[in-house]
Amino acid sequence: MHRLRRFADERDWQQFHTPKNLAMALAGEVGELVAELQWLTPEESARVMADPDHAARVRAEIGDVMIYLARLGDVLGIDLLTAATDKLSDAARRYPVERSFGSSAKAPPADNAD
Amino acid sequence: MHRLRRFADERDWQQFHTPKNLAMALAGEVGELVAELQWLTPEESARVMADPDHAARVRAEIGDVMIYLARLGDVLGIDLLTAATDKLSDAARRYPVERSFGSSAKAPPADNAD
Amino acid sequence: MHRLRRFADERDWQQFHTPKNLAMALAGEVGELVAELQWLTPEESARVMADPDHAARVRAEIGDVMIYLARLGDVLGIDLLTAATDKLSDAARRYPVERSFGSSAKAPPADNAD
Amino acid sequence: MHRLRRFADERDWQQFHTPKNLAMALAGEVGELVAELQWLTPEESARVMADPDHAARVRAEIGDVMIYLARLGDVLGIDLLTAATDKLSDAARRYPVERSFGSSAKAPPADNAD
Repeated sequence: MHRLRRFADERDWQQFHTPKNLAMALAGEVGELVAELQWLTPEESARVMADPDHAARVRAEIGDVMIYLARLGDVLGIDLLTAATDKLSDAARRYPVERSFGSSAKAPPADNAD
Repeated sequence: MHRLRRFADERDWQQFHTPKNLAMALAGEVGELVAELQWLTPEESARVMADPDHAARVRAEIGDVMIYLARLGDVLGIDLLTAATDKLSDAARRYPVERSFGSSAKAPPADNAD
Repeated sequence: MHRLRRFADERDWQQFHTPKNLAMALAGEVGELVAELQWLTPEESARVMADPDHAARVRAEIGDVMIYLARLGDVLGIDLLTAATDKLSDAARRYPVERSFGSSAKAPPADNAD
Repeated sequence: MHRLRRFADERDWQQFHTPKNLAMALAGEVGELVAELQWLTPEESARVMADPDHAARVRAEIGDVMIYLARLGDVLGIDLLTAATDKLSDAARRYPVERSFGSSAKAPPADNAD
């Protein structure tokens, strides 16, 4: 996102935007997102967008997380979609449909990937 | 990312992919990303992609984070780029260039936003 | 925990144990703990200690989180129990029993504390 | 911490305090702690307690993290100090002094432990 880079440039904030600092900022924003869902049951969380106030807060946190992830990808020279697609191809190999159907054992993509 | 949704569908994993669970998975992956940078100085972190092994690990973690963020946006019906752009517009209002130049006080976009 | 400090001293690791680095290490370990519970329902999570393997993993992650939190308290000169007790006294004032009974609205102690 | 349990009991909050929810709350509080240090250099972070306002914020976040970690240990029946001590004994075996002196390679205790 070029607009993000310009935003940081205009304010001379690249000096703060090292990968280490951006990873911390990302962790902070993910913490705020998690906090929005922490007392909900999984079922309530699936309906969270039906409450306009809560929906706005969740959407704002998702936006913040995306901003820092994009900034981090930019300073590291990593394309987010390519990196995700490559990991997904790995996951498809490690979790073939026939063995993984309906099992949470090591369920979702990228879990325990490293 | 349609491919992500199909990946979960084929394995009957949507049952696990509630917003609450996906937010936790996102936090777990961000934790792994942070762990890759935790003992580096900020300067060393800026050179992390020069080491092929470390670069591959960081790239894989970024891919994992992007996968779960995309999945979360998908189940919540939130477009990641629009959410980020809207937050960036807020940040531009709250941190005008003239007052924010070179100051880390409340520096980067989205910091303390809520 | 003096034993922790000696452990770091003996290995000449205090150089890495800045508050910034330790906060990142703490976030990484909490991410691993969260990952152990991410696909469980809240009810399943309440029975997690009944499975010896899963119990051992959760206990090990709790131990890791405690190690870094204790290290962080040590380098910052913050007594963990006193800091927690002080926050709990704040929370008792902000969430009086009569108004908070059974309501998750702003439920648990320390939520939205800042 | 008995006082913590009574605090939750009095407000009928045990219903929200499943291990899953408490792990999320812990992640949220650690995110706030990380956010307090994210734009500091490691050296600045080592002096953070010299600034009374910043020190108070960091101390409050440490208190919040400790509260949720203690609550989590309580509901899981895990003694925090014993769990930490056991992990430290593991780490001492895996990182003998003679091989680990001054090396951040896989430096601190519990790193990559699982």
